[in-house]
Amino acid sequence: MDRARNIYNSGLDRRPANFTPLSPIGFLARAARAFPDHTAVIAGERRFTYRQFRERCHRLASALALRGIGRGDTVAVLAPNVPAMLEAHFAVPMAGAVINTINTRLDAANIGFILDHGEAKAFLVDAELAPVAAEALKVARAKPLVVRIDDPAVSPSDFGDIEYEALLAEGDPSFTPVPVADEWDAIALNYTSGTTGDPKGVVFSHRATYLNALSNLPSFRIAPNPVYLWTLPMFHCNGWCFTWSITAAAGTHVCLRRLDPATVFDLIERHGVNHACGAPVVLNLLLHAAEITKTRPSRTVDFVVGGAPPPAALLEKMERLNFRITHGYGLTETLGPSSVCDWHSEWNEKPVIERAALMARQGVPTYGIEDLTVVDPVTMAPVPADGQTLGEIVVRGSTIMSGYLKNAPTTGAAFAQGWFHTGDLAVMHPDGYVEIRDRAKDIIISGGENISSLEVEGVLYRHPAVLEAAVVARPDARWGEHPCAFIALKPGESADAATIIAWCRTNLAHFKVPRTVVFGPLPKTATGKVQKHLLRERARAL
Amino acid sequence: MDRARNIYNSGLDRRPANFTPLSPIGFLARAARAFPDHTAVIAGERRFTYRQFRERCHRLASALALRGIGRGDTVAVLAPNVPAMLEAHFAVPMAGAVINTINTRLDAANIGFILDHGEAKAFLVDAELAPVAAEALKVARAKPLVVRIDDPAVSPSDFGDIEYEALLAEGDPSFTPVPVADEWDAIALNYTSGTTGDPKGVVFSHRATYLNALSNLPSFRIAPNPVYLWTLPMFHCNGWCFTWSITAAAGTHVCLRRLDPATVFDLIERHGVNHACGAPVVLNLLLHAAEITKTRPSRTVDFVVGGAPPPAALLEKMERLNFRITHGYGLTETLGPSSVCDWHSEWNEKPVIERAALMARQGVPTYGIEDLTVVDPVTMAPVPADGQTLGEIVVRGSTIMSGYLKNAPTTGAAFAQGWFHTGDLAVMHPDGYVEIRDRAKDIIISGGENISSLEVEGVLYRHPAVLEAAVVARPDARWGEHPCAFIALKPGESADAATIIAWCRTNLAHFKVPRTVVFGPLPKTATGKVQKHLLRERARAL
Repeated sequence: MDRARNIYNSGLDRRPANFTPLSPIGFLARAARAFPDHTAVIAGERRFTYRQFRERCHRLASALALRGIGRGDTVAVLAPNVPAMLEAHFAVPMAGAVINTINTRLDAANIGFILDHGEAKAFLVDAELAPVAAEALKVARAKPLVVRIDDPAVSPSDFGDIEYEALLAEGDPSFTPVPVADEWDAIALNYTSGTTGDPKGVVFSHRATYLNALSNLPSFRIAPNPVYLWTLPMFHCNGWCFTWSITAAAGTHVCLRRLDPATVFDLIERHGVNHACGAPVVLNLLLHAAEITKTRPSRTVDFVVGGAPPPAALLEKMERLNFRITHGYGLTETLGPSSVCDWHSEWNEKPVIERAALMARQGVPTYGIEDLTVVDPVTMAPVPADGQTLGEIVVRGSTIMSGYLKNAPTTGAAFAQGWFHTGDLAVMHPDGYVEIRDRAKDIIISGGENISSLEVEGVLYRHPAVLEAAVVARPDARWGEHPCAFIALKPGESADAATIIAWCRTNLAHFKVPRTVVFGPLPKTATGKVQKHLLRERARAL
Repeated sequence: MDRARNIYNSGLDRRPANFTPLSPIGFLARAARAFPDHTAVIAGERRFTYRQFRERCHRLASALALRGIGRGDTVAVLAPNVPAMLEAHFAVPMAGAVINTINTRLDAANIGFILDHGEAKAFLVDAELAPVAAEALKVARAKPLVVRIDDPAVSPSDFGDIEYEALLAEGDPSFTPVPVADEWDAIALNYTSGTTGDPKGVVFSHRATYLNALSNLPSFRIAPNPVYLWTLPMFHCNGWCFTWSITAAAGTHVCLRRLDPATVFDLIERHGVNHACGAPVVLNLLLHAAEITKTRPSRTVDFVVGGAPPPAALLEKMERLNFRITHGYGLTETLGPSSVCDWHSEWNEKPVIERAALMARQGVPTYGIEDLTVVDPVTMAPVPADGQTLGEIVVRGSTIMSGYLKNAPTTGAAFAQGWFHTGDLAVMHPDGYVEIRDRAKDIIISGGENISSLEVEGVLYRHPAVLEAAVVARPDARWGEHPCAFIALKPGESADAATIIAWCRTNLAHFKVPRTVVFGPLPKTATGKVQKHLLRERARAL
């Protein structure tokens, strides 16, 4: 086409009035304007309206700016789901800076590495985490401004340069946020542990977070003014962007310092919670507690499960507990949700087992994703939509990370051939829905046959005595590898290896049946993911 | 800030995997993948699933491309809310071209002007509108490919170069859409009569339409798989973007050739319609019919009202008719909705009259708008939020038009000082909600359609007996407003109202014809300008 002849190519340029950088910061301005007196935050006895929430964010942004923190600076936060953590999601970018939330279960060495690698200029630390933060600061070269976040639930200390509320008092409640210069500018830095070597710093743009936050609303059926319980750590991909999504919808953020099932059920009833998110382990925890205490929420809670493939048996039980589950899938690099198992109303007619199996699939792209599909990792050709042929999930869209900080080679590899490579092995079903069969590294190859650890775990989860199960490859002289099952039993239940193996033989092809069964608690990451690399080491050492 | 020192400034560039141009075209791909067998379109006895809808769009795009229509070319459509009109919203941009929907009530001269100004390369015409289209093509210099859209409801004709279904048959159902080169590229051209002279061509980018379509979902509480009835003309800002929004939500588009209340109520019941949009005149029409026939939908219909300020009394009555009203506000230049009267649940406790008064306000920005406020048009300072001080509504955000086609001066004026100037006079309430107090001075809004008083005056001035003419809005129970003409005759000449009205009917689209004609001298300022505000008072008092 001759560009010069195109009548749309002149006089129709981007201008300040029609091209505003996309940024989730504006969601707070909108909510505070439309719903100033609506409860924005509940944390124990503390409550903030949207007017107060905005003012506190303005104060923090202003105080950071007064201390010289601005564009391109990193502000690290080590805190559970407390108001300051939420406020930082708006205040830090309002100062032009980049928010770096840190996994609260990391050790001092890892935290120190992150402070140095991200070059943190400020470090907000919940008082409860002061000891590990102090250790981290000893090993780190970075010398950030250290801000202690006190909390009524934590005994006072004198850690840090200043207490959070004192810092807020320095700031201006009518501060004007630093304008976003370019929507591609960084807003968030999230370290992912990966499985090898040092953590990688995943960088997100204002554009990506805006689009993912907005996309979450229709993708997860969030109506205006939701009441959202923070069962998912905010340090996890910025709470899958729900920090910004729930604010966009002028919702109520119900904070949660730690995941105690009794507290969760109490908060659901007390505040009329209707939305929450978390990994399958969260559901497991709630389910187990509910079975003991015979608790059942009196209203339906919309729960987005993700972070690991949920066993169908678990989904089935949560439905009876009045949780309406939506299954999302994503990685830190996709800012949380990049696919959703969109529900078909006609599936409601199916038996609960079938419904749960349909729901356990990772599904189709969210509204914010351009494409998510399954390809042959070598040829990049789409696998046939037969529900059988294994390939790698690849993703493309404007909600994907900008890249890994200071790590061009790994960034380049992750984005090879125009797609983000997830490393998850999956099949494409005939109906266009993706289903993960395994992480590339978790697949078990026995006698030349691929065995999905997830499939075996799904069978184990259906056994009445099993609380949690994880299956990994164990070296096998004859078969190369064989499935090795690690099982945590429900309190008060008992089962031995023979029982478990017999159960599996009834429900699985024989070559998929674990030949080794180990009982005991499973090692987990901060986000509740089972640490299979540790189990693999154990299996090798058996 | 020293950009070189910013660690986020290197190695984190836009790439094909993480920066995909925003475009609403992708919504169809997503819906057709997740819900291929769900009903996408209902038109009388015809039904298309999402798989069929996508195939038909691919066929049309492919057929247009085969005939040489591509990037930067304009494809005009003159049709009521029929499937072809909806399909063109996806197929035309899939071919890289720009869709230009034309107001079906315009006369041949205006349509001809639009075909020429937009340089239409193809012109899709519903068979019912063939006569006016044929006239328009006679006066136009443009020689587009003319495609006749036949319909079971319309008697066949041989107008045009090819029938729509025959054109589809030329196309490839597995056509790959032309990639969007830049999200700023034009996708739509919508002519607005404005207040002066010739219609202005309002251009929208892929980015703006994507964002407005996505923003509509949370702004107007659209849950997955809505059933949407097309009571709003699609030619109106692309149906306020609902063409794309409802497709994004994998909804069912229930087409509607003309706004017949009995048909509307029948379709609501038959197909379980739960969403619709329209101007207050649509509600008026439905209400009037419902009162006579004692009809009331058995399920709640979410109805977005906009295009003109809805009278509180009307809102109150619609509520009793089981319509849940949401009030949106916008202009052609804002692609439809740019504000929404976000509802506060505590308002439900108020008496119905108060509720209706609250709802009649234009409200707060939609999710897609950066800011919408009321300013002094001279100083650009925000007016006090006192619910009293009059100012102009100005808007800023990424869903605003790119500009007016081939009209740099008017574009520059509309975007002066970093805002889009709506020309609507309003107050800011203490709670942050905007309410229009007066229309932009000259425009008349009748049945949701803009009528330029200058255009009507131009016709009146051409009548041999007319010395001076001024046209203002007169309140009209059915249409909201209608044009009221004040005429000073030339000395010695005579004419009566019937003569003037007949003259106008020959020279204007019928909806623009004055329904009231008053003879006598016109009040003027010292400099000779007609004082329209005095005429408006007189028209109200008639």
